[in-house]
Amino acid sequence: MSLIVQKYGGTSVGNVERIKNVANRVAKTKKAGHDVVVVLSAMSGETDKLIGLATAMAENPDDREMDVLLSTGERVTIALLAMALNDMGVPAMSFTGRQTGIVTDAAHTKARIASIDGGRIKAALKSGKVCVVAGFQGITPDSDVTTLGRGGSDLTAVAVAAALKADFCDIYTDVDGVYTTDPNIVPKARKLDKISYDEMLEMASLGAKVLQTRSVEFAKKFNVPVRVLSSFSDAPGTLVTKEDKKMEKVVVSGVAYDKNQAKVTVSGVPDEPGVAAKLFGMIADAKVNVDMIIQNVSQGGKTDMTFTVPKTDLKKAMPKIEAAAKAIGCKKVVVNEDISKVSIIGVGMRSHTGVASRMFDALAKEGINIMMISTSEIKVSCVIEQKYTELAVRALHDAFGLDKAA
Amino acid sequence: MSLIVQKYGGTSVGNVERIKNVANRVAKTKKAGHDVVVVLSAMSGETDKLIGLATAMAENPDDREMDVLLSTGERVTIALLAMALNDMGVPAMSFTGRQTGIVTDAAHTKARIASIDGGRIKAALKSGKVCVVAGFQGITPDSDVTTLGRGGSDLTAVAVAAALKADFCDIYTDVDGVYTTDPNIVPKARKLDKISYDEMLEMASLGAKVLQTRSVEFAKKFNVPVRVLSSFSDAPGTLVTKEDKKMEKVVVSGVAYDKNQAKVTVSGVPDEPGVAAKLFGMIADAKVNVDMIIQNVSQGGKTDMTFTVPKTDLKKAMPKIEAAAKAIGCKKVVVNEDISKVSIIGVGMRSHTGVASRMFDALAKEGINIMMISTSEIKVSCVIEQKYTELAVRALHDAFGLDKAA
Repeated sequence: MSLIVQKYGGTSVGNVERIKNVANRVAKTKKAGHDVVVVLSAMSGETDKLIGLATAMAENPDDREMDVLLSTGERVTIALLAMALNDMGVPAMSFTGRQTGIVTDAAHTKARIASIDGGRIKAALKSGKVCVVAGFQGITPDSDVTTLGRGGSDLTAVAVAAALKADFCDIYTDVDGVYTTDPNIVPKARKLDKISYDEMLEMASLGAKVLQTRSVEFAKKFNVPVRVLSSFSDAPGTLVTKEDKKMEKVVVSGVAYDKNQAKVTVSGVPDEPGVAAKLFGMIADAKVNVDMIIQNVSQGGKTDMTFTVPKTDLKKAMPKIEAAAKAIGCKKVVVNEDISKVSIIGVGMRSHTGVASRMFDALAKEGINIMMISTSEIKVSCVIEQKYTELAVRALHDAFGLDKAA
Repeated sequence: MSLIVQKYGGTSVGNVERIKNVANRVAKTKKAGHDVVVVLSAMSGETDKLIGLATAMAENPDDREMDVLLSTGERVTIALLAMALNDMGVPAMSFTGRQTGIVTDAAHTKARIASIDGGRIKAALKSGKVCVVAGFQGITPDSDVTTLGRGGSDLTAVAVAAALKADFCDIYTDVDGVYTTDPNIVPKARKLDKISYDEMLEMASLGAKVLQTRSVEFAKKFNVPVRVLSSFSDAPGTLVTKEDKKMEKVVVSGVAYDKNQAKVTVSGVPDEPGVAAKLFGMIADAKVNVDMIIQNVSQGGKTDMTFTVPKTDLKKAMPKIEAAAKAIGCKKVVVNEDISKVSIIGVGMRSHTGVASRMFDALAKEGINIMMISTSEIKVSCVIEQKYTELAVRALHDAFGLDKAA
């Protein structure tokens, strides 16, 4: 008998029939003798509908009120699932963020979890009940409602699993696990049985949308075994867990890509100490997330700075970037939205050499020019022309033999 | 400078435009120098939509979960109004039932208010904020969400006004006050400037749907001055307040009618002590609300019992009534749904005689037969054939000169 936390996303609870389907899965797990805590998102589309109401109501909707508004979506689904379970003869009880004891900071719309009490949940589990928890929400120490940002329900699930010391945190999605790369691009892509937290973290932040980055960080920190599963099948899924000896033997575990990047070049930057700090300080103040940064060799006391930002932030970021460029005495800012980033990820890189050059080779063989390079201990990323994205992903998948099990 | 509680119902917050209209009204009151607490219902139609989801989900939706579900409707409207106000430069803050400190008993879906703290609201008012409170909801001492039943937002408004010792509790509806009778039936019906709590209570429970009965009881108990106003005009409305000398001079203040009544006759009831108690005890156990009761003169040790029940309860009530009749050895149960109840109400009746006979006279002149009569200190009700309802209401309105101001 295990304690299992199951998380179902918006599409899995998108209508009455699908919620009944979730109820059946939960009932099955419960009847197999396990204790079950279910974490739910809002019905798909509901959060966007509420945001639409808010923006119709006010030009800049107040963040505190936005959280009161958005937190209603998960309350609807938890009540409905608890009703369905009780109606099936499986005793169940819903828990809002507050009732779950999820205390966060006061950063409305993107709050961070400070602590989870979980006392009421433990008591309900003890009395044999299935606990149905609202994802994505918590309260401040002052009892105001907060939300955890997009994908926050994954984080709720992992955090609740950590607080309850659950045996597994099962994340149900519309795919049946984590793949070596996007199967839509590479039909030979292989589902991974296991992946390390660090690899998953790179995959998540590099554009593989299976798990939200913060939830993987949290799982790593508290060593929560996470399984990625499909809510529409019974396939075994992928276990995200801590690194083991076997994983290190695999040089590259996956290939990720991200088309939501734009390349910005600031030309004629004075090559003086403190200039980069000033430029990127001003951009950071605008809360724009800068990813890769490259500085060219200086010529005549001037240099170029090139960096990438998410395409979706570009409109908000450009005035700030231009102001920053002006402030440090630069002439020109050039933007290229026609790029993408491809990356190879693997904990095995730590103990293997020549991985990056194998990547560059594979891209060169296809005639793909590399614009920027960035590396970490367990990944290598290259910025390329966007039209080559799929070609590059397939070439890398082949070059590292990812279609064959290790 | 006064402290004013304003309550807006579902139609007043039915869409984005209407919520903006409410925001304008609130801003106007605030700018006139008053402290304002706003109590809101859910958008019209929203509660029914949620109930629809619940009944699709489970045959008998769990009451506790129903409250979690239904309480989301008001959270949406309070967040939206607070956003609109802040956007207009009027500092505002939303308060859920819990944040308002509304503690209820644990009778889910029809909870009764036990206490209101209101500490956070007082602090917010002091700092110059408009407080926007979710109607219809509270929490149990164990921190579970409860709702107060249909029309519960009126009750929230009155209770909050009592707790804060507000100068006025303004109930905004789609009519502009309390009328001597339904203006749809009697075009000459006159809006009352003032009405006593007791009269309003009789009007409310007799079918005039302006204010929910429990909220009037609460207003009377805590002496809260309630104004009934239209959210679509600036007309002065009707003040519901404690009785004064001037009110007593008016014999009849209003005429009410109720078409949602059915007459049930149980024939051949043994005329023995305890039989009525047994019959109505069994009906009460089924939670059916019995209104008027008449017992005929006994003939040969047998008698007839006639009583009225709401037509909407009839389907649920009939099996219980038939079982009860059988248990006391009765032969026959006859139902007549083709009736209605007309009533005259006025605190002046206490000090005037002959009021009932004037009513019977007026009905007789129109050839209307009276089937049942029931009286209290301040009202007389008659059950008549339903087709005569409008005729009777007009005749009574004329007979007591209600079109003329006292």
